[in-house]
Amino acid sequence: MLYLGIDLGGTHIGCGVVDREGRILAQAETPTLAERPYEDVVRDMAACCMQALTQAECKVEDIATIGIGIPGIADNETGIVIFCTNLGWHDVPLKAELQKYINRPIYIENDATVAGFAESVAGVSKGCRSSVFLTLGTGVGGGIIIDGKPWTGAHGVASELGHLTIELDGIPCTCGKDGCLERYCSATAIIRMGKEACLSHPHCDIAQRVNGDLSKITAKIVIDSARSGDDISMRIFHRYCRYLALAINNVVSFLDPEMVVLGGGVSHAGDFLLDAVRAKLPYFLMFKTMPYAQIHLAQLGNQAGIIGAAMLARIITEEGETKHAY
Amino acid sequence: MLYLGIDLGGTHIGCGVVDREGRILAQAETPTLAERPYEDVVRDMAACCMQALTQAECKVEDIATIGIGIPGIADNETGIVIFCTNLGWHDVPLKAELQKYINRPIYIENDATVAGFAESVAGVSKGCRSSVFLTLGTGVGGGIIIDGKPWTGAHGVASELGHLTIELDGIPCTCGKDGCLERYCSATAIIRMGKEACLSHPHCDIAQRVNGDLSKITAKIVIDSARSGDDISMRIFHRYCRYLALAINNVVSFLDPEMVVLGGGVSHAGDFLLDAVRAKLPYFLMFKTMPYAQIHLAQLGNQAGIIGAAMLARIITEEGETKHAY
Repeated sequence: MLYLGIDLGGTHIGCGVVDREGRILAQAETPTLAERPYEDVVRDMAACCMQALTQAECKVEDIATIGIGIPGIADNETGIVIFCTNLGWHDVPLKAELQKYINRPIYIENDATVAGFAESVAGVSKGCRSSVFLTLGTGVGGGIIIDGKPWTGAHGVASELGHLTIELDGIPCTCGKDGCLERYCSATAIIRMGKEACLSHPHCDIAQRVNGDLSKITAKIVIDSARSGDDISMRIFHRYCRYLALAINNVVSFLDPEMVVLGGGVSHAGDFLLDAVRAKLPYFLMFKTMPYAQIHLAQLGNQAGIIGAAMLARIITEEGETKHAY
Repeated sequence: MLYLGIDLGGTHIGCGVVDREGRILAQAETPTLAERPYEDVVRDMAACCMQALTQAECKVEDIATIGIGIPGIADNETGIVIFCTNLGWHDVPLKAELQKYINRPIYIENDATVAGFAESVAGVSKGCRSSVFLTLGTGVGGGIIIDGKPWTGAHGVASELGHLTIELDGIPCTCGKDGCLERYCSATAIIRMGKEACLSHPHCDIAQRVNGDLSKITAKIVIDSARSGDDISMRIFHRYCRYLALAINNVVSFLDPEMVVLGGGVSHAGDFLLDAVRAKLPYFLMFKTMPYAQIHLAQLGNQAGIIGAAMLARIITEEGETKHAY
């Protein structure tokens, strides 16, 4: 049998036909255009799936299950997307709507959980019984794998690792709280620190790289500047890596997984990031002489969403259960 | 069959004969006198066990397994206590030493994990598949139950919840880091805030309750003062409850267990504490309209150590595995 994996993002929808081992046989993409009614988005999603099926030279009947990764949370009993802030979705019957076009069992899960699961099935954490995936993007998402399966909690709201408080009365977060981890460990945090540096040092390397237009600062620009040896950017980078090491220690001290996997845009900084974070982590560890989680970069990149969604729907359906361990 | 549970504390050792359902049939206690060589401590531990056995009118042959809860971490492959800071133990062969006296299978686990497991077997979280136990004492300990079993991590260093960072560059912790959760959520934190209040308000209610001797301030004195309506103490109490609610939200946002159980000395404040924490928690929650973990007080008190150690050794031995899920 084959499996459909759908990565529903704020700007694009990716659909792929995936085999049992998590290999993508064919994939297609379509813009989300999230401002439209959800019915239109789901119609395009179905068309995109059909396109991938055609490319893979297979039919709907060859598909066992469909998995969908969403930037939000869903109730799989009802197939309803409860929250999906980026899309402006609230209580959207995604499963029922998609089944109008493709009548197969559908499983919906948070995108960071899906990506973390993909890495544990076919990526860097393959073979690990426990791992925690951190997406370092506009925000910070988390995916928890325990006993080889995604852990989404007793009420489906686990692994919101971006919204752990790491600073009492700290930087206000988009979620309404203050001092959330993602205010310090996201790409957004690097951009904020880059802007602050440009305001106090208008001729710094970062400002020059964007010709003084601070709205053009990206995490990549700041990290590239640091990589080139610029002093101000290096300080931002090391401050960021210190926050990230502290966040990883919180994961280690809480769950002690076999591996912590870093994904998302910031992780594209590669070994430059990984080496700095690995160097800072031991300072924060509780038991400095004990073994602890390996820290690695994600391997599957943008394909993690499709692979993870497809594989998650596969195991959930095969095991005849909707959730892990309760 | 019956089971021996041992609660190895910094000042006392408790030993109990426990039945299959987690009921203590007989128990005995002896001082730890931790400054002695470990051989002497273990000899008294064995004698204390024999005393409990005699009281229960049973023999060593009636005992299937022995569980020991320790304020530290152990390696159950070797039966060695790796760290037990309160006792000054490092690499102590506890299992081998105790088996000189009572030759039964022995399983050693962290005391907060053991207490959390006890509550999930015979206490307030009985029937919950997932729960997190927080001991609010001199420090803050954590016990994680996933899928009905203790989760101690891939390297045995999980659930160090007292040492999650909740304040960047915050109050220095005994562990060497800064801003650890237990600096804000322990009994020690209440005492610190009480002392600070007395220094700036020398005639406050707390100062009067200790006749000006600040070394006599306890968490109970501060909470009793708050309960009586004293304004300064109320402010300390509510500040503490805000920290604790934030810590509980970190647990909810990370693991989303069915229940969070509050134990340890501070939890003896009862509903006065519970009501205040429950009232403050919703402010910190990520998804304010979603269901979330129940928050309850521990039920088993000092007996949790004996019950949890005995029951943990039972399930570990019966299931023929030494750890959960990996």
